[in-house]
Amino acid sequence: MANNSEPKVTPWEVEGIVDYEKLIVEFGVKKLTSRELELTKEAIGELHPLIERGVFYAHRDYDVFLRKYIAGEPTALYTGRGPSGYVHLGHIVPWIFTKWLQDKMGIDLFFEFTDDEKFLYHKEYTLDYVRKITIENILDLISLGFEPKNTHIIVDIDDISYLYELAVRIAKKITFSTIKAVMGFNTSTNIGMIFYPTLQIAVCFLPTELYGEQTHVLIPAAIDQDPYWRLARDIATSLGYPKPTQIHAKFLPGLGIGGKMSSSQPETAIFLVDRPEDARKKIMDAYTGGQPTAELQRRLGGNPDICPVYKYYEILFEPDDDKLRERYNDCRSGNLLCGPCKAALADRVVSFLEKHQEKREAMRDRVEEYYLRNKF
Amino acid sequence: MANNSEPKVTPWEVEGIVDYEKLIVEFGVKKLTSRELELTKEAIGELHPLIERGVFYAHRDYDVFLRKYIAGEPTALYTGRGPSGYVHLGHIVPWIFTKWLQDKMGIDLFFEFTDDEKFLYHKEYTLDYVRKITIENILDLISLGFEPKNTHIIVDIDDISYLYELAVRIAKKITFSTIKAVMGFNTSTNIGMIFYPTLQIAVCFLPTELYGEQTHVLIPAAIDQDPYWRLARDIATSLGYPKPTQIHAKFLPGLGIGGKMSSSQPETAIFLVDRPEDARKKIMDAYTGGQPTAELQRRLGGNPDICPVYKYYEILFEPDDDKLRERYNDCRSGNLLCGPCKAALADRVVSFLEKHQEKREAMRDRVEEYYLRNKF
Repeated sequence: MANNSEPKVTPWEVEGIVDYEKLIVEFGVKKLTSRELELTKEAIGELHPLIERGVFYAHRDYDVFLRKYIAGEPTALYTGRGPSGYVHLGHIVPWIFTKWLQDKMGIDLFFEFTDDEKFLYHKEYTLDYVRKITIENILDLISLGFEPKNTHIIVDIDDISYLYELAVRIAKKITFSTIKAVMGFNTSTNIGMIFYPTLQIAVCFLPTELYGEQTHVLIPAAIDQDPYWRLARDIATSLGYPKPTQIHAKFLPGLGIGGKMSSSQPETAIFLVDRPEDARKKIMDAYTGGQPTAELQRRLGGNPDICPVYKYYEILFEPDDDKLRERYNDCRSGNLLCGPCKAALADRVVSFLEKHQEKREAMRDRVEEYYLRNKF
Repeated sequence: MANNSEPKVTPWEVEGIVDYEKLIVEFGVKKLTSRELELTKEAIGELHPLIERGVFYAHRDYDVFLRKYIAGEPTALYTGRGPSGYVHLGHIVPWIFTKWLQDKMGIDLFFEFTDDEKFLYHKEYTLDYVRKITIENILDLISLGFEPKNTHIIVDIDDISYLYELAVRIAKKITFSTIKAVMGFNTSTNIGMIFYPTLQIAVCFLPTELYGEQTHVLIPAAIDQDPYWRLARDIATSLGYPKPTQIHAKFLPGLGIGGKMSSSQPETAIFLVDRPEDARKKIMDAYTGGQPTAELQRRLGGNPDICPVYKYYEILFEPDDDKLRERYNDCRSGNLLCGPCKAALADRVVSFLEKHQEKREAMRDRVEEYYLRNKF
């Protein structure tokens, strides 16, 4: 973890303490304002904590998408996952929000698993490994309660026949110079990685092709994916599709000091396949915003603003605003010590994992119901 | 046509008078010798004029392929076509030789139509246009008498599900630097063209995948395609496939001065859809190795070695070696004038076109029988 070096956010690497305000400027996206929150309420009737609490915090034309939805025009949701390893709690943050949008709006979700990308990116990965991980990741996704009738999973290699023609049309619009600049590639990048972005972009336009009418697509995803959408928006009109719109999430922090949760640092992330007791231990060992001793903590109070344990409550494990505020204030005032705060979080995480892992095994036979190829 | 500038031979451009000996050195291939011709006879029992007369003149491991065939190991043929326009007589030279090999050896032919490549390469081409041309080109191919039971046509975009996994495994082995050097790309090349070579390479390994056993593949093709095979051979072993082998053809010259026949110079090429009378006119207007006047020709003789009309006899329209030698000598001695020589060629071409075009229409309903997707 590179706390002292320049933070880095690309689709393949998130390092250091992320400056989310700076990313807005760097990526050229817009901050979500009360206007978009009001419009969400108008479209859907309520707000999800993930948007109300600013976890989803930036966008491109989210307001345009909502207006199209309100006007009754065809709309769809799109997000995805690069199956590079087991799913951790950070990954499911956009999925939970996406599911909420889908439930409220009653529209299709297209979910892409980019097995090709992960095979191409990781020198040591075999296709067998990526395939196995893809299935494991799919189980985590569908166990969150997505409905098969309007949740359509695409696995790039298996479903390439849905994507390749679109990808070729997209590829014709993008030179090596452009992809190099946008994605940070270089001349040693393999030609699969160079082409791959066309497949992530292709799904932005797939609903229009499948429905046979101009369809407005909203992509809820972590902000590191923005380079793809910037490219997609640049070429959409010339290909005859509506520009895809985005709503961007911050990352769930790792349990160490700063940084994103990472498969390469398993002790800093809770994986959905972790044994509950291992997850409990990770949380009890987590870095916090507390003082070095209980006595100091009682006297000076802790700092929830830099505390990953607090962030886990805020982002995933305390839906009640009043209780969250209470926890915040109790930490600040020194009334709440890190030990019990961690233990209570561990209880909730363990309970979540136990239920999730039970559902997960039950879903193993139902994967086929979710594949796009079985429905379109 | 750039007669005075440096000749250029790449998969996308053949310009100037090609120095075939120089290409052998440039591409690092081997010249066919009497040894390989003898081995062909041993394997197949006879020789085709196209190899006996040196139209197929160079190779990579053609001898290895023949030995594998003789030893009874699994073998297959592979060639293809970039559907950028109508098929002309030059295109069918490798096809005729391939069909002969297939007939004699009784093995499968995999034939790739690279619609993606041609769409990606030509700025102004639409997919609809390339699709239409692909079908028209398929008609010309199958009208040459290929058997559907062992001739398997692949159309890249439609059949991408057969190729993409292989392409991704290939792509992981090739950097931008490599593809740039081998194919002559630059940073303004679109990312579809950069990826495309993986699909042309993929078919080299497809028979092994489809048969489920190591299969030795021979590719009869014009020599401009060699860069693909060089790459394919470089990575074959590391991917677990036999190195594909090649036998390289010279080009049928255009009817103008030097150069390849070209769709961009329709007057220099006989297209298989040309009206017979148009073809006759093109031949009667052709450049020849003759003298400026009949009188001079009678006195000094002509030069068949630089004469495209003679080449058409040699390559496609005079199977009889004695008659060909007679024509050569009569030209040299001044006994044969260009007018009657052209007229006799025109008669043969017209007769070929009339029969071909009749068959061609009859084949329109039989295209489906040839698609790989309907058989594997």
